[in-house]
Amino acid sequence: VRASVHAAALDLLREHPDPTAITITAIAERSGVHQATLYRRWGTITALLLDVAAELLSRQSPVPDTGTLRGDLEAFAVTAAHDLTQPLAPALLRALIFSNADDRQRDPDLTFPQRVGQLQAMLDRATARGEHPPTLNELLEVLLAPMYFHLLFRNRPPDAHHARTLVDRLLASTQPDARGVNGFADQQ
Amino acid sequence: VRASVHAAALDLLREHPDPTAITITAIAERSGVHQATLYRRWGTITALLLDVAAELLSRQSPVPDTGTLRGDLEAFAVTAAHDLTQPLAPALLRALIFSNADDRQRDPDLTFPQRVGQLQAMLDRATARGEHPPTLNELLEVLLAPMYFHLLFRNRPPDAHHARTLVDRLLASTQPDARGVNGFADQQ
Repeated sequence: VRASVHAAALDLLREHPDPTAITITAIAERSGVHQATLYRRWGTITALLLDVAAELLSRQSPVPDTGTLRGDLEAFAVTAAHDLTQPLAPALLRALIFSNADDRQRDPDLTFPQRVGQLQAMLDRATARGEHPPTLNELLEVLLAPMYFHLLFRNRPPDAHHARTLVDRLLASTQPDARGVNGFADQQ
Repeated sequence: VRASVHAAALDLLREHPDPTAITITAIAERSGVHQATLYRRWGTITALLLDVAAELLSRQSPVPDTGTLRGDLEAFAVTAAHDLTQPLAPALLRALIFSNADDRQRDPDLTFPQRVGQLQAMLDRATARGEHPPTLNELLEVLLAPMYFHLLFRNRPPDAHHARTLVDRLLASTQPDARGVNGFADQQ
């Protein structure tokens, strides 16, 4: 059921630039799964689209564990940038933004609950190593927000070089010393 | 003509959560201005909405000139955050994102050409004073992108405190020295 529902959602995103075309009703029709089942399992179209997005992202990009904060942040940012170059990424983000506007009471936060837990664990590993990781909110604001901004407002998907620039900025603005120019921050 | 077209666009944004309801046809009907006139003057719905957004923003928030880089950045960021608490701000951003997706060939960049020129002038004044301003892209990525992210993805409009945190981050990551803790950067 889940696979056919996800496939139907991706098909609809591929065919319709109009995000209002992505509804529970349309997904039920396309997948052959009953609307009642979709509502029972996901509750709202926003929750369903978040599940599609999480599946697409976490299957393709597991949260990294390279052994250093910079390594983890670079791997995460470069992969996130690459994920956003997928042809369906802008349509999926737009559909999420739109469904969320309709659904405001029920789904206030589109930042992937499951993903967020994995990222927090990545930052906690840095703390355990004696490094000084940014907060999760700083990570979202400095790494993800500019990528979404360029994609949605400037039609420019980010690339690996841009991703690394964002990591430099995150480290420069959050490290207690050394502004990202070397590896001393974790030895203080 | 311009005032009645803007009023019609704002009325439609107020009434319709569905951003696809905001079209040249709908604005022509509501304002009583001929479609041909709208196309001749603005070309696309994206250009028209950008004009509405620029008018709304620049009338309410002229680009600051306080005499210091930090002062200018704080005044800009706090006002931008305040502008985004306007009830119509999320609907306007969503309408821009969607119209731009339809209109990809013609309007690749939603970052307000007129506004961008004024912001560049603000940064150039800092350079002329001997300060070390960020680039315009750094300003957009560090100050505006997180505000848009919170508003669109988390339904949380930014506030003045958040705006100042973003300015601190921008200065910490772009100043050649002193990470924003004092005013020495401009005396090097």
